[in-house]
Amino acid sequence: MKYNMVTEEILNKLIEIVGSKNVLTDKEKIETYSHDETPKEQYACMPEVVVIPKTAEEIAEIVKIANKELIPITPRGAGSGLSGGAIPVFGGIVISLEKMNKILEIDYSNMMMVLEPGVITNDINEVIAEKGLFYAGYPMSVETCFIGGNVAENSGGGRAVKYGVTNRYIMGLEVVTPEGDIVQLGGKLVKDVTGYDLKQLIIGSEGTLGIVTKVIIKLIPLPTAKVDLLVLFKDVKSAIKMVPKIMTEEKIIPTSVEFMDKLSVQASCQFLNEHLPYQKSGAMLLIEIDGNREDLVNDDSETIGELCLANGAIEVYVADNCTTQERIWSVRRNIAEAFMVVSPHQSLEDIVVPISAIPDLMPELDRISKKYNIQIPCYGHAGDGNLHATLVKNPESTMEEWYDIEIKALKELYQATKKLGGTLSGEHGIGYKRKDFIGIVSSPVEIDLMRRIKKAFDPNNIMNPGKIFDVK
Amino acid sequence: MKYNMVTEEILNKLIEIVGSKNVLTDKEKIETYSHDETPKEQYACMPEVVVIPKTAEEIAEIVKIANKELIPITPRGAGSGLSGGAIPVFGGIVISLEKMNKILEIDYSNMMMVLEPGVITNDINEVIAEKGLFYAGYPMSVETCFIGGNVAENSGGGRAVKYGVTNRYIMGLEVVTPEGDIVQLGGKLVKDVTGYDLKQLIIGSEGTLGIVTKVIIKLIPLPTAKVDLLVLFKDVKSAIKMVPKIMTEEKIIPTSVEFMDKLSVQASCQFLNEHLPYQKSGAMLLIEIDGNREDLVNDDSETIGELCLANGAIEVYVADNCTTQERIWSVRRNIAEAFMVVSPHQSLEDIVVPISAIPDLMPELDRISKKYNIQIPCYGHAGDGNLHATLVKNPESTMEEWYDIEIKALKELYQATKKLGGTLSGEHGIGYKRKDFIGIVSSPVEIDLMRRIKKAFDPNNIMNPGKIFDVK
Repeated sequence: MKYNMVTEEILNKLIEIVGSKNVLTDKEKIETYSHDETPKEQYACMPEVVVIPKTAEEIAEIVKIANKELIPITPRGAGSGLSGGAIPVFGGIVISLEKMNKILEIDYSNMMMVLEPGVITNDINEVIAEKGLFYAGYPMSVETCFIGGNVAENSGGGRAVKYGVTNRYIMGLEVVTPEGDIVQLGGKLVKDVTGYDLKQLIIGSEGTLGIVTKVIIKLIPLPTAKVDLLVLFKDVKSAIKMVPKIMTEEKIIPTSVEFMDKLSVQASCQFLNEHLPYQKSGAMLLIEIDGNREDLVNDDSETIGELCLANGAIEVYVADNCTTQERIWSVRRNIAEAFMVVSPHQSLEDIVVPISAIPDLMPELDRISKKYNIQIPCYGHAGDGNLHATLVKNPESTMEEWYDIEIKALKELYQATKKLGGTLSGEHGIGYKRKDFIGIVSSPVEIDLMRRIKKAFDPNNIMNPGKIFDVK
Repeated sequence: MKYNMVTEEILNKLIEIVGSKNVLTDKEKIETYSHDETPKEQYACMPEVVVIPKTAEEIAEIVKIANKELIPITPRGAGSGLSGGAIPVFGGIVISLEKMNKILEIDYSNMMMVLEPGVITNDINEVIAEKGLFYAGYPMSVETCFIGGNVAENSGGGRAVKYGVTNRYIMGLEVVTPEGDIVQLGGKLVKDVTGYDLKQLIIGSEGTLGIVTKVIIKLIPLPTAKVDLLVLFKDVKSAIKMVPKIMTEEKIIPTSVEFMDKLSVQASCQFLNEHLPYQKSGAMLLIEIDGNREDLVNDDSETIGELCLANGAIEVYVADNCTTQERIWSVRRNIAEAFMVVSPHQSLEDIVVPISAIPDLMPELDRISKKYNIQIPCYGHAGDGNLHATLVKNPESTMEEWYDIEIKALKELYQATKKLGGTLSGEHGIGYKRKDFIGIVSSPVEIDLMRRIKKAFDPNNIMNPGKIFDVK
């Protein structure tokens, strides 16, 4: 597919639509729109122009021009993505949603909110907490990411065990299609089976099927009590065996069940100068229980603690106040940062396997780690089978060696994941970074159906091209 | 679109694939496959042949023949649908899933089950209850409907307030595409953002994008305690105002919040000879709370009861044992049946509006009822805004008059629903029955996108044609 360049004439049309101060072409200013949270040196691509619209109508006009003139468009939220989804790999126009950041409505009687796509996810909860309400679908990057980006990636996060992921809470969307039409999907409706579920199709389509310009989210009652348990096990297998037991034997669905292997805990503790007794333990679970009654949450956490001890846990630490909770979550949150000390060059992955297959994944990580002489700490959302197995460059290898190793090791990691019934990505998406690997887990028929959908929505392939799969 | 007839030669090929006893052409035998639970006299269409395969491979072979020979295929589950989705409106081949009814696997460590599409939904729970597990996505017709049909319709039901609808529990699907390929979507994975969510697109697509041949469902812990409250209000408005209050003020998410207007309760009570004090009340809520701790469920039900009384409820009846629970649910369940005494000719609808708009819907029902001189009892899932407003034929009008009135009244009902931010169907689907009305709620752009998806999956339009929308 050959695209055209953004001409002076097109630039003038863009300025006419959004005003000159919302059209950026200055190299220094647009550099920040050339990458997301994937390594810049590997993936960054410069756009020709960045446009910052304020309405769906403006976006529709821009898209119509791009579709007619065959200019690629890359929609962009906060740029906090981890798969290169917001990188303008063919140049063209970046449409930044940063100024569409208004909370349009808080509808208490329907327990819903209407948002522009540029609202920061955490801001939602700050606004509604005092009313005892809660938006439960949010990722670890909650303090920077946009709700529109959450929709594009169908974001997950650490609380999905109990609360599910983004798509559970998206009731309605307004979308500008790749041909520049504005379409309303769903609404303030918790049930809707009127025709195909286009809303669900847009969610997680990584900006390749349209640009989300409005989001209706469902709120739930805000949980007010919380306890965290840090549970030490001698090995991964005994840790993972606990996960379904908590739910089946004790009938408790925890908010989070996070997993950290020894390597992860060790690095993070050293980094934080934290004295958790990690030496004794081969794996840890961080289990959070929340609810609206303190007594019940305490009961549940006691029950889980006892169950863990009866099933081979070495020790159970209870964190029932903010300080200790923050201490143990800090260890979990700082793992990636801690490995930056080892090497700033990493490939942060988010593979998913059936929960029961996690123990079988560990020897595979070990094998790949040894074969390529790299560290692969593994941590993440055990309750979802969603693991951040992270490839960390050996400081002794050159960058050239690392790029070569990275591709080979990723391929083996994905193949091992596939063999265990798993898939490439549970949260971060395929984007630009994993596009060439999708064939490892998705069949040719499945990819062909995706391509056909893309073609049906975007015949000229102008909407976020170069992501997820190659268009033939 | 012009289809071809099933020739002797094709019939022989079908017999070769599934064996002669699984190919039905006898008029008497295939009559039962000509309709679902929509009125037979209005919607039934005879197939040319009914094929009863046992494997996905057999289905793939049949579909390949049909796709090559341009013969329409209609997939069929239990035939319990309420939108004519399983009716072979262009004749051709009905593929009945009735013999693909095996539970293939119960995977306790992942809390999942692998099912063939013909498994009766209720059988799932009968098998897993003793292990303390529960499949939560199921509709009112749970005792007859198939899990494959639940997937095709994205079935809802009375427990969706707490548990959501079918799509929350479907983790993986095997599907035979309209071109006869077998594709695996998802897996035993609770998070998956690898490319477009084709699984979610298939769910609710009413058998128009492929035939589901395997279903992986997620299980949750079985709730063991349950209390039902029957709450009487003087009018609809005060009843509906309670719904978000329970969730926001008391932070309780009930399992069900069912609504019954006076007309519905009256008819059902008279039908059952039940002595609920309906005379005093303009509307009732039936609120169910479940959980795993009896004390907590009791506390919650007391809290809700008190909140209702403090907000204008006339009376609260507590049903905390099976006998009284069955008594009040029986009133709810028998409303449709009760109106059969008035007239067997009804149009059972399942419109959805924002919860807060339910009171505004009532005068519209009243207006339409008076204008066309028909009864419109209204009951259903208030907690989801999903209401079974049912048009009941006036016994005094002729069938010809009724058919005319039905179309006009339905149109006005859907227009009123649309005006309130609602849509045509929350559970039953569009199918054959509501196909000509979809344009009232869905925009031309949205319907065009659906048509493009249909064309992308099924270029020859052989898979369940004549449903949801007309293919151009």
